[in-house]
Amino acid sequence: MDIEVIEGGHVTSPQGFSAGAVAAGIKKRAGALDLGLLVSDRPAAAAGVFTQNLVRSAPVQVSEKRAQSGQLQGVVANSGNANAPFDQKGIDDAEVMAALAAKHAGFDEQLMAVASTGVTGVYLPLDKVEAGIPRIELSHDGGPDFALSIMTTDTKPKSYAIAMKEGGQTLFRVGGCAKGSGMIHPNMATMLSYITTDANVDAPFLQELTRETADATYNMMTVDGDTSCSDTLLVFANSAAGGPAITKGSPQAEALRSALLAVGTELSRMLARDGEGATHLITVEVVNGPTLAHARNVARTVALSSLVKTAVTGNDPNWGRILVAAGRSGSPVEVAKTSVRLQDVLIFDTGRVIEFDDADVSKRMEQDEVRIQIDLGLGTHSATAWGCDLTTDYVHINADYRT
Amino acid sequence: MDIEVIEGGHVTSPQGFSAGAVAAGIKKRAGALDLGLLVSDRPAAAAGVFTQNLVRSAPVQVSEKRAQSGQLQGVVANSGNANAPFDQKGIDDAEVMAALAAKHAGFDEQLMAVASTGVTGVYLPLDKVEAGIPRIELSHDGGPDFALSIMTTDTKPKSYAIAMKEGGQTLFRVGGCAKGSGMIHPNMATMLSYITTDANVDAPFLQELTRETADATYNMMTVDGDTSCSDTLLVFANSAAGGPAITKGSPQAEALRSALLAVGTELSRMLARDGEGATHLITVEVVNGPTLAHARNVARTVALSSLVKTAVTGNDPNWGRILVAAGRSGSPVEVAKTSVRLQDVLIFDTGRVIEFDDADVSKRMEQDEVRIQIDLGLGTHSATAWGCDLTTDYVHINADYRT
Repeated sequence: MDIEVIEGGHVTSPQGFSAGAVAAGIKKRAGALDLGLLVSDRPAAAAGVFTQNLVRSAPVQVSEKRAQSGQLQGVVANSGNANAPFDQKGIDDAEVMAALAAKHAGFDEQLMAVASTGVTGVYLPLDKVEAGIPRIELSHDGGPDFALSIMTTDTKPKSYAIAMKEGGQTLFRVGGCAKGSGMIHPNMATMLSYITTDANVDAPFLQELTRETADATYNMMTVDGDTSCSDTLLVFANSAAGGPAITKGSPQAEALRSALLAVGTELSRMLARDGEGATHLITVEVVNGPTLAHARNVARTVALSSLVKTAVTGNDPNWGRILVAAGRSGSPVEVAKTSVRLQDVLIFDTGRVIEFDDADVSKRMEQDEVRIQIDLGLGTHSATAWGCDLTTDYVHINADYRT
Repeated sequence: MDIEVIEGGHVTSPQGFSAGAVAAGIKKRAGALDLGLLVSDRPAAAAGVFTQNLVRSAPVQVSEKRAQSGQLQGVVANSGNANAPFDQKGIDDAEVMAALAAKHAGFDEQLMAVASTGVTGVYLPLDKVEAGIPRIELSHDGGPDFALSIMTTDTKPKSYAIAMKEGGQTLFRVGGCAKGSGMIHPNMATMLSYITTDANVDAPFLQELTRETADATYNMMTVDGDTSCSDTLLVFANSAAGGPAITKGSPQAEALRSALLAVGTELSRMLARDGEGATHLITVEVVNGPTLAHARNVARTVALSSLVKTAVTGNDPNWGRILVAAGRSGSPVEVAKTSVRLQDVLIFDTGRVIEFDDADVSKRMEQDEVRIQIDLGLGTHSATAWGCDLTTDYVHINADYRT
């Protein structure tokens, strides 16, 4: 089984998906796409992972409920307003928005998920949504426009797609797009991601794979530690590629797992790299951890550390900050068993301060991606987290905005 | 019982304590005080709270062991080097430093605690310590010099002292000093604090009060979320004020509790206010929490949020960021029961978005201290956390340094 990256691939690269977007005037910037619709040509098995924040936007509440049925056919999303006034009118507005989109797409409104991202605490401008939805033209090439329409402070859209092949034949495709993360105009970080596949998979297994994917990718990605009331990952599997149903333990189950992980990983890396003000993607790989949970926890804690982030900003091969961030993670860390590599150069060796070429490692840190590897020497479990450095631009972006 | 603030008070304001410091050449800046000694004229009941980071500096390991006896007579501390190479030589060096200081002060070396703060991963320059200690002149007025000698990136020394009075008579005094927190040249945040009292109190009760004080003050203060391998709070009670022994439930027990809390609170506020790059002290008060632990957790999470911090930097009355930070704390938060006040102005009312004078609240946020009050509406427990805003100077301080 081979993974083939689809050049210029996007969320509608899998068969049977179409999308479109319009400039509805919700964003302040005139002409910016801010209202998008992504649909399947038939009902799809669906799975979702939503923010764990106890403060939840209206669209999250509506979409989570609908995703629980295991079947969805599309999602309508806007940027520029998070529909997060936290009251019943917010819920009502989200349901109206979904109903308008379902009517336009021609299927039952219960099959339509809904998402909003942008300013919080302000009611959704429903008139603009109502005027915009009928203007959305759906097409199989609409993925890139959809990806643009969900952007807020992102500097670039994030799309990716792959095909799973066997003996030259395509078994199925997986595509996706994402927006975030850093904070949103103005209130909070929001991560939205939609993954589509034309694989034939049952909903319970899809939910299991979606949760696995989220835990290994989106949940291992951090910009500033702040979660949002709107974070959403939705996966649609419409079976348009045909083939026997993929269930747990079936021949193609591992292929689907790998494909979802590959798309989730790539989108997470894009999200971290585009973190607000970021100049580096930081990859923290923990190896030989005592458990998977501990390996993940250490990786995430180091990736989130303000001191590690600013060391990367300054190209500073500062193993002390890395070690001490690991030490406060709450997971077992034994200094005498711990080694640290930076850009593949050993800079701390099983508890010992060692000589290394500081200037050379600093020079290597000028690359776009800075890789930190921490060997805990306590087991066999590995995990990777993605983050970004902390720059003065992050502060400007988030301090200079006035509500 | 009245608390009287001692004008210009410091760590040697209580009777029987003396201190001194010299410029030993450990710090790069010539002439900067960097080696200090604080002693009691008699063995004192002692209690300590040390970093929970699993990566621990050598002095922390030595001092924690000695503090466990419940009796200490002094502490020797240096800045400019954290003695954190994390090996046996580090431990040996810390013990030698303590022994030299104990010899100079004229008491048993097991009664001498030791602390180092500054660059990690480099062996302590023991020759400079050895040459410096005999030059330290101890005096009852030496507290301010001692406070200066433990500073690293602090912009000002932090000292405070109070007298507990009854009917015009002083029962006992409590003094203290602290350094940090922000990160240290160059590697990590370190908080060191020493509290002295001439009260007569037994060691087990002192340890109980010290833990309580730390939980309510130092542990409620955050600059960047990174803990250090060196964080230390030591409390010395030398009974020089005389009077009957204070034990749990004895008449003056509450007075001593209040006094330690008052000194810990004031030093914590000074530490947060002097966080690296900070332009505002942020006070987060959570009221009507379901438990004390939850109230503290919500307060700390909000105080640590990069989004809340940058909102304060920009004088932005952004209730959304406050609410969402609370929502990810892991503690119960119900939006419909939650209210938020900023500088005493209600800006979010039991789940409802309300009108308020944005410009006026923003103007009020220009004050040195920004007070955020969150009413959880879920119980009767309150907690206060102290933090500071996040500015571009924080990034400069921590990114521009090269190891």
